[in-house]
Amino acid sequence: MQSTRTVSGAVCRRTLLHMDHKHTDTRVECMKPGEGRKRVVIEAVSPQVDGGRYAVRRFLGDTVTIRAALFGDGHDHVAGRVLYRHGDDRRWRCVSMQPEGNDIWSASFPVDQLGPWQYAVQGWIDHVGTWRADLAKRLAAQTPPAPGGEAVDKTTSAVTNQTDFLDPSEPGDRIARTNSFGADPVTASASDIPLALRTGARLLREAAARAKGADAATLQAVAGSLEALAEKNLAFYDAEALSTIFEADIDAIANCYPDRDLATRTDDLTLRVERERARFSSWYELFPRSTAAEPGRHGTFADVEDRLPEIAAMGFDVLYLPPISPIGEAFRKGPNNSVIAQPGDEGSPWAIGSSLGGHTAIHPALGTLGDFKHLVQAAHSHGLEMALDIAFQCSPDHPWVQEHPTWFTIRPDGSIQYAENPPKKYQDIYPLNFESPDWRDLWENLREVFVYWIRQGVRIFRVDNPHTKALPFWEWCLAEIRAQHPDVIFLAEAFTRPHVMYALAKAGFTQSYTYFTWRTYKAEIQQYFEEITRPPISDFFTPNLWPNTPDILHESLQTGGRPAFMQRLILAATLGASYGIYGPAFELCENTPIRPGSEEYLNSEKYQIRHWDRGAGYSIAPLITRVNQIRHENIALQSDQSLCFHPVDNPQVLCYSKRMQHAEADNVILVALNLDPHNEQAGWIDLNLKALGIDHDETFDVEDLLTGTHYRWHDRSNYVALRPDVMPAHIFRVTHTNMNN
Amino acid sequence: MQSTRTVSGAVCRRTLLHMDHKHTDTRVECMKPGEGRKRVVIEAVSPQVDGGRYAVRRFLGDTVTIRAALFGDGHDHVAGRVLYRHGDDRRWRCVSMQPEGNDIWSASFPVDQLGPWQYAVQGWIDHVGTWRADLAKRLAAQTPPAPGGEAVDKTTSAVTNQTDFLDPSEPGDRIARTNSFGADPVTASASDIPLALRTGARLLREAAARAKGADAATLQAVAGSLEALAEKNLAFYDAEALSTIFEADIDAIANCYPDRDLATRTDDLTLRVERERARFSSWYELFPRSTAAEPGRHGTFADVEDRLPEIAAMGFDVLYLPPISPIGEAFRKGPNNSVIAQPGDEGSPWAIGSSLGGHTAIHPALGTLGDFKHLVQAAHSHGLEMALDIAFQCSPDHPWVQEHPTWFTIRPDGSIQYAENPPKKYQDIYPLNFESPDWRDLWENLREVFVYWIRQGVRIFRVDNPHTKALPFWEWCLAEIRAQHPDVIFLAEAFTRPHVMYALAKAGFTQSYTYFTWRTYKAEIQQYFEEITRPPISDFFTPNLWPNTPDILHESLQTGGRPAFMQRLILAATLGASYGIYGPAFELCENTPIRPGSEEYLNSEKYQIRHWDRGAGYSIAPLITRVNQIRHENIALQSDQSLCFHPVDNPQVLCYSKRMQHAEADNVILVALNLDPHNEQAGWIDLNLKALGIDHDETFDVEDLLTGTHYRWHDRSNYVALRPDVMPAHIFRVTHTNMNN
Repeated sequence: MQSTRTVSGAVCRRTLLHMDHKHTDTRVECMKPGEGRKRVVIEAVSPQVDGGRYAVRRFLGDTVTIRAALFGDGHDHVAGRVLYRHGDDRRWRCVSMQPEGNDIWSASFPVDQLGPWQYAVQGWIDHVGTWRADLAKRLAAQTPPAPGGEAVDKTTSAVTNQTDFLDPSEPGDRIARTNSFGADPVTASASDIPLALRTGARLLREAAARAKGADAATLQAVAGSLEALAEKNLAFYDAEALSTIFEADIDAIANCYPDRDLATRTDDLTLRVERERARFSSWYELFPRSTAAEPGRHGTFADVEDRLPEIAAMGFDVLYLPPISPIGEAFRKGPNNSVIAQPGDEGSPWAIGSSLGGHTAIHPALGTLGDFKHLVQAAHSHGLEMALDIAFQCSPDHPWVQEHPTWFTIRPDGSIQYAENPPKKYQDIYPLNFESPDWRDLWENLREVFVYWIRQGVRIFRVDNPHTKALPFWEWCLAEIRAQHPDVIFLAEAFTRPHVMYALAKAGFTQSYTYFTWRTYKAEIQQYFEEITRPPISDFFTPNLWPNTPDILHESLQTGGRPAFMQRLILAATLGASYGIYGPAFELCENTPIRPGSEEYLNSEKYQIRHWDRGAGYSIAPLITRVNQIRHENIALQSDQSLCFHPVDNPQVLCYSKRMQHAEADNVILVALNLDPHNEQAGWIDLNLKALGIDHDETFDVEDLLTGTHYRWHDRSNYVALRPDVMPAHIFRVTHTNMNN
Repeated sequence: MQSTRTVSGAVCRRTLLHMDHKHTDTRVECMKPGEGRKRVVIEAVSPQVDGGRYAVRRFLGDTVTIRAALFGDGHDHVAGRVLYRHGDDRRWRCVSMQPEGNDIWSASFPVDQLGPWQYAVQGWIDHVGTWRADLAKRLAAQTPPAPGGEAVDKTTSAVTNQTDFLDPSEPGDRIARTNSFGADPVTASASDIPLALRTGARLLREAAARAKGADAATLQAVAGSLEALAEKNLAFYDAEALSTIFEADIDAIANCYPDRDLATRTDDLTLRVERERARFSSWYELFPRSTAAEPGRHGTFADVEDRLPEIAAMGFDVLYLPPISPIGEAFRKGPNNSVIAQPGDEGSPWAIGSSLGGHTAIHPALGTLGDFKHLVQAAHSHGLEMALDIAFQCSPDHPWVQEHPTWFTIRPDGSIQYAENPPKKYQDIYPLNFESPDWRDLWENLREVFVYWIRQGVRIFRVDNPHTKALPFWEWCLAEIRAQHPDVIFLAEAFTRPHVMYALAKAGFTQSYTYFTWRTYKAEIQQYFEEITRPPISDFFTPNLWPNTPDILHESLQTGGRPAFMQRLILAATLGASYGIYGPAFELCENTPIRPGSEEYLNSEKYQIRHWDRGAGYSIAPLITRVNQIRHENIALQSDQSLCFHPVDNPQVLCYSKRMQHAEADNVILVALNLDPHNEQAGWIDLNLKALGIDHDETFDVEDLLTGTHYRWHDRSNYVALRPDVMPAHIFRVTHTNMNN
């Protein structure tokens, strides 16, 4: 009789030795590892998401730095490398790790291809390096020969403190010590050196046997030189003379060919590389139905084309349209979300599907598939990518309801379950049932919706309410699509609890809507952005900041007037490398809710056509244009990981910076923003100079990129005063004065 | 041609579709999971060590609380349970998890058996719970029938804010919202209730099919009642009437039988349960060679027996002896670590092995194996457990050197490599070579050393320099021994870098020496103890605090006189549930170093016999006795996880508390200690009242257990003044005044 169990990583087996009526006698044996000589331990590999369960997210052109704790037993040196490859590669590439102190090692590699990459850390005892370091100490301990005389051994019988035996301390480390030995060290004599040279030769010949080509020859040659030198049995070995032998960097060469049998290697970890727009994007959302030049007419794709120059001129690069599929007739809602629609009411684009088709059909009032493809091309020619809204839910008229009733929940009376949150009913919507016995079929068909639009030229999808669809589906679906099209971007519209939002990002969503829309106080903005722009969150979660959406007209916009729109625009566009607005409502400062206390717009475009006076003088389009220009001209604003907040002695003034050092450029942006839409606010900023690359006591230049005004600032403490009605923020570019004069 | 790769957790397969001279056409397909309907995600399971790579350590009698994030998609309720079993069990036990808010769930179970335990978290969609919650809302939304009239539907066509649709907010949460639907909710009508009852009946019948015995019958019966009620098709359903149907807690019953096919389950995690002494122990180290009653004679095991009553009376429970194996002759060291030993010099017990035997032999001057076993028994009768020192290194005379030369490093000249840290040599020590080709054989024989002494009655081992032996060896060896003897305790004597010390604890060492010996300033004590007494470190690392060892006479003891010994004793014994002293040097305040700047004792017992005047009036044995008594009488001092530091406005005064609530007892100990051995220090403590279980503005009693003096304290701010020459610390027991009067 045998049974197995796991004891702290070791697999143990219980064997029955003897059994009689009185007792059983068993013996448990734990399995030795296949190779017990892998003396290096590798821990705390970063980045990784949930211990490697999910891919780390990086962007094309990034340099990825892998860190790990790497250590062995005793005082032998260790060495390590990072192995990495793109998903399409068969061979691993490798880069040597360098020590950062306290047993932490790191190495970096560039990711120059979209899609999945794998990486692993490998570590081993660096016998050659240990030997060379020891040899240097042996050589240094020799006494040079007296003129004409013999070399003198430093061997002594003096009592020596053995604190550093076997465990050399880090400089200044009072801790590292091991000395339970009853042994007094005797210092080495010159006569030990020939033996040490032979030991080195043996190590190099072992490495040579694993090495290839020229490296093998180099190692063999050095080994031969060492042996020859040992043969001479000198009374004194000149370190200078040895240096010619060590012209080749034999430690580095030998460490290119570690004994893989004795090297420790972590499991493979995955990272996913997405394209630049996944990191840096400026979104503009509009309802095509409202783009007609004349009031009252239903807008078309052609009308949207007419709007492209204006949107591109504002500096946006993604144009996002709400769903363009046919709108359901059953239980259609009227203006302002009324239950009874009148004939001619347009309904909500999120009530997907009618007798005219489902998720891959086009609402006839907008145009044809040809018109849509033409729009996609036209947008492209204006530097705009089209983003489509994918909402996996069906109106009762959706063809799937008849064709695939098992994809929905069937009630005991045979009817299909509509959406409800008792006692409220949403009878115009049938949710899909992800516990359907036909889930495989459902998954395939949902994936095909994306594939269909990809074929029409779409590469960006804003996914509606992804948190109401099963997470395993997303993990599979997004991987499937990326396997063919690694350039596709998915934005998760999930306003829900933190764990769920983060889980969607882990499952593969490129970007995520955030709580930014509801973060208006200084402390909550700072706390939230410190959370989402730093590891571990930033290793998988990429924020996309929206000051408004068709669903959310935040109270601060309702009450703060035009200055509030200016504030929220600048915050979104400078806190986040990716942001978006729902326009023209945003730039026209539309701020009337359906009723007090609601975040719904009055006369929302979700349920009716609107006509916008885009030429109005109060439009903040000029500010948007300038801010997007600043974003494009300043690389610091094109990623989030450098975000740093600076204390200000006024809770209504927020100050933060971003910095990007890239090739020759050191781009530093510092934003100071008045959060109060009604009153001038001023304060002293206590700058984190290190984050700005400014020296202590330095005088430096800050140029407000919104106004062109230059200020001469000095050291940490500097003053700002901001009138919200004039301009609620400075967006400074920080430069060294000497470089600027 | 096919190749596979992993994309974010999904396994993808590349299939060649077509290839000609110009291009290859491939298609990548990602594998769906076997069951895609497991809608619950489980994350962030705690405790776990390195993602489950190593066992979590707990102690016998502990209640283990498992926490995890548990969530699904959409608004369905989720439920979860913790599965757990002892290593010997074939069946899993389970306990339901309870929500703690923000998607965190927890459950606890007691560990009442030594050795390995496994646990896992399982979660699923709680359809019955979701349905019941919805039904309650439906019932509440009915309007009671007007007297003599019909029930009135609350169905309205009013515009309703749909903020909470599909994603009910946490109370007060401004975040949770999803509402891209173009749908106005219609509230439910009474006519929906019969259908809802039938839906519930269906869910209960499904659960009944998975349930057993009485539970299945209960679920079927309730399902029948619901169907009967639905048949009545009432105009109004009285929630009171339904309450009789719901007398049985059907949610809880149904959740005992989740549909395992659709439930998510984590991998198994391991925890190791050790005995109480692993958590709470008081160690006394002595050199048997110095225990003879008469000066000059070599002490024996019999002499150690004579010391047992005294050691037990001081309140210790572990008696630890340096190695008792034969001491090597070759390169033996003399007194004060001198290189040349004189005839008659005793040598160091850590130079293991001679012609008389190795690690399983006994140094003849100490006695016989029979004498040793007698000592073990005698110690046991005094409440003392014997701890043996295991030092895996060999003197050149050790039998293994002849029998197993391959276990050592052979130099190119055929000689065996002695220990060295060039240019220093330690020729009396041969280290073992854990890269030996015969490592399997070596591992077995090292394990057998422990097994041998276990057979002689030893259950505690202090392992010398474990960090100079391969970590994979320890992981295997300790698991092997524990598989037979789960009560064995291993103390790691590793004074080295943090990662290595922690790695040894992860590999299975029960307790670890710490940096306490070198932490003497308030800030560094506080910082270090906050690190090691809290997760993640405290989940695998158990400190054992030593104010001195035969190797370490810290400078603070050299210069601080008797008060320094009192301070360090009280710190060790109250900061740590496990601590030890090397005596009689410690209680006799022996403080002369071999030379200024060294931490080595002059005339160290490591190299010679000492005779101690244990009756000296300056002995702090009475203080040790009292402190150990306090430790035994106050359960708060018997574990470390409640350690809490309290601010004091004097950097020389340290204040901390421990609290243990257990059954009816609430034991609270508060220590205030003067770190200055020379001067009186006083200060105001700003108590963390919550950590003490004291209310704001409460007056409470603190009794100094060292003196018996009571003080009446009030609220947070209280004053202490401590004269180091009198008593450098208060050890207060804190009690509520009303309970104490």
